[in-house]
Amino acid sequence: MTQIGAALLTRLRDELGREAVLTDVDVTAAYARDQMPLAPSGTPLAVVLPTDVAGVQATVRACADAGVPIVPRGAGSGLCGGANAIEGCVVLVTTKLNRIIEIDADNRLAVVEPGVVNQDLREAVAKHGLFYPPDPSSYDWCTIGGNLATNAGGLCCVKYGVTSDSVLGVEVVLADGSLLRTGRRTVKGVAGYDLTKLFVGSEGTLGVITQATLALRPLPQAPGTLVAAFAGTRDAGAAVSRIVREGLVPSLMEIMDATTVDAVEKYLKTDLGTGDGTGALLLCQSDAGGELARRELAAIEQVCADAGAELTHTTDDLAEGAMLMQARRSVHHAIEAFGATMTDDVCVPRTRIAELIEGCERISAEVGLLIAVCGHAGDGNMHPTVVYDADAEGEFERAKRAFDAILELGLSMGGTVTGEHGVGKFKQEWLERELGPVGLRVHRQVKHALDPGNLFNPGSMFAL
Amino acid sequence: MTQIGAALLTRLRDELGREAVLTDVDVTAAYARDQMPLAPSGTPLAVVLPTDVAGVQATVRACADAGVPIVPRGAGSGLCGGANAIEGCVVLVTTKLNRIIEIDADNRLAVVEPGVVNQDLREAVAKHGLFYPPDPSSYDWCTIGGNLATNAGGLCCVKYGVTSDSVLGVEVVLADGSLLRTGRRTVKGVAGYDLTKLFVGSEGTLGVITQATLALRPLPQAPGTLVAAFAGTRDAGAAVSRIVREGLVPSLMEIMDATTVDAVEKYLKTDLGTGDGTGALLLCQSDAGGELARRELAAIEQVCADAGAELTHTTDDLAEGAMLMQARRSVHHAIEAFGATMTDDVCVPRTRIAELIEGCERISAEVGLLIAVCGHAGDGNMHPTVVYDADAEGEFERAKRAFDAILELGLSMGGTVTGEHGVGKFKQEWLERELGPVGLRVHRQVKHALDPGNLFNPGSMFAL
Repeated sequence: MTQIGAALLTRLRDELGREAVLTDVDVTAAYARDQMPLAPSGTPLAVVLPTDVAGVQATVRACADAGVPIVPRGAGSGLCGGANAIEGCVVLVTTKLNRIIEIDADNRLAVVEPGVVNQDLREAVAKHGLFYPPDPSSYDWCTIGGNLATNAGGLCCVKYGVTSDSVLGVEVVLADGSLLRTGRRTVKGVAGYDLTKLFVGSEGTLGVITQATLALRPLPQAPGTLVAAFAGTRDAGAAVSRIVREGLVPSLMEIMDATTVDAVEKYLKTDLGTGDGTGALLLCQSDAGGELARRELAAIEQVCADAGAELTHTTDDLAEGAMLMQARRSVHHAIEAFGATMTDDVCVPRTRIAELIEGCERISAEVGLLIAVCGHAGDGNMHPTVVYDADAEGEFERAKRAFDAILELGLSMGGTVTGEHGVGKFKQEWLERELGPVGLRVHRQVKHALDPGNLFNPGSMFAL
Repeated sequence: MTQIGAALLTRLRDELGREAVLTDVDVTAAYARDQMPLAPSGTPLAVVLPTDVAGVQATVRACADAGVPIVPRGAGSGLCGGANAIEGCVVLVTTKLNRIIEIDADNRLAVVEPGVVNQDLREAVAKHGLFYPPDPSSYDWCTIGGNLATNAGGLCCVKYGVTSDSVLGVEVVLADGSLLRTGRRTVKGVAGYDLTKLFVGSEGTLGVITQATLALRPLPQAPGTLVAAFAGTRDAGAAVSRIVREGLVPSLMEIMDATTVDAVEKYLKTDLGTGDGTGALLLCQSDAGGELARRELAAIEQVCADAGAELTHTTDDLAEGAMLMQARRSVHHAIEAFGATMTDDVCVPRTRIAELIEGCERISAEVGLLIAVCGHAGDGNMHPTVVYDADAEGEFERAKRAFDAILELGLSMGGTVTGEHGVGKFKQEWLERELGPVGLRVHRQVKHALDPGNLFNPGSMFAL
């Protein structure tokens, strides 16, 4: 360890207490990576777990003085390596700032610290008849801080938007340790630049979010569920386009291709009841309640039938709905049973979903690897997953080629290289391609303006 | 004129054509101010009306080279002096970039130039069964560019949000003349910082927006309308809180105090049928259609009755609904009939609307001037208007004192000094108070990063 590193550890222990500063490599290793196995990571100098804002500020000031980079981290459920440690950095973990400070039911807002687990917030506000929509798949263990940093999505987005659509303001520790409060508690407000939205989704490169004011909605009704099976993806894609075009807004609209349906049926040892030869499955929910939900789902069912669905089934039985949702939520694990996986996160215009899936079939044939596609059809955000054998020579390279070809295809269709997972330490080159030289320059200018010493998560998202 | 000024005019005429560069002071005077009479303005060196992006870039480069500031301007319907000329500046008017480039009905988006008039876009997309929600009062003459620059609101916000909620991406000419494209055409996307939201609402201080990709919604149903009259503002405020709390989301929810109702009745020479002694009027609409709209309005009507409304009346007669809306839309002109006006734009938590109105009554008594309050109850954005005699000695000062006292009150209630009009050249000090020193510093850093020469609208919003 360098002298600077040792002095930094001493200062951090003095200011935050010994128990807040972890340096045992067996322990810190658990904080060195998120859930994207392919992104690079280093060994941190230390992992720091402050319990309050002052502790975050002290950590930031100490690291700034020592010139040691900080990687902010929540629960580590991220999927782009954004929270992966940089060699010799301090990983600043916000999980111990985990108070729900306030729930203002009358103004439908909550003030929370970043370490609150998404599900804990959902449950706390549900007691007031309220709803916090963003629901990334890791909702039962990811934290609000990580959700804010990545502008996380989930299954709710088709009706309720992404995390930034539920954020009124944030409190952020800046690179000099000062505390910035952005936004407001009111529904509207245009006083100054929208700094709130600048920090949301900035993946820990601009500061450390230590508090957020979140907008809540009325708790929706228990959902009715519709499943529709199509012989081909093109029919399913046509149904999605038509649902969007007709202005129907289900609270969930997921698509699974044949490979995904097979994988899930094997994994759950169940028959989804969609028959053999299913080319694609569409799963929709409506949380509008009662007669309205029935009408919404009936209209969607009609569109699916018109688009050539071979089977449609609507239920307001909650257990049956939950079983179908369980199928969707199991996709990731089901596909992992086939081998190592590389999951894409392209988002394309909603009219072009079938085209993307067909493109994935073509790429699958070209590289000779299984590609299972599922995704949030309602917003065009698809997650094709390339399956490969990590021990077979050349397979990783072929998988990466397929992964990249899918991104390329998504971009060529007017899409984006990341719909909700983020850029992190894995997609920097793709971000550069999507932004172009002027966009990249502006990103660098903003980063340099707010973090001139490149203290926060340097090299993540883009290089300065 | 200075030599630099003369050389700049020559260059602008050469590059854009003589007809695009106006210098006759009788003509340029019409472009020197917006609709906020109290904000300072200067005499522009020239008014430039480019017809395409290249013309905007040429103007920006020429002005940057000459060190002459640019004030970007749309139709000039703004209410904060944001588009007011600075002495010796070039006013860059975007009204001639007025093409609707694309309406993609299947993906529910439109690509437009900034000079498109809000109403023209509404009508064009309505032909496709689609809806562009933001509807500032000036919707029949304001431009999308101005709406983007100020992040304009309107009557729709309670259900559909503000302008930034309908923007997917923008194209901006930066201070060096280069062209930045932000955002995307997809519903979701987290590739990089949310620069789109940074430019929306930046009031012409960061660049010139030359194109926008806007999200559209399905065209809603013709609205049903409810009017409820209350003896006191407190009852009306309680009704608003309860409507919010119950999760009812009307497509419009406006409040008018007694002074406003009187003024409108006199101005329109009509009786709104709410009886004498009305303390406050609540006006709601539901565009959910048919039975659902009837149910929504019935639920709101019940809440109003429970809160002590003296009269409630619901109609799905469109002519009657339009008459009531006309009353709301006439407020500004109705109040102007009493004298000179100064209109506030505070936004407070929705539970505190009655408190704000009562505070305005107190302030009115203190300064001895009429204050009429109306506003968007559904989002807490209130527009108290102070009426004064511009020729009576001391009245302007008293009016300004009342205006400031209302802002002070709004801030003390956890509100913001501008819900939708913006800061411009009129509320810089108030912005500074609301942001605090760290917030202001970050604003300066962002501005300096993107516009190091302080070319765009210098001194507007905040001083560098």
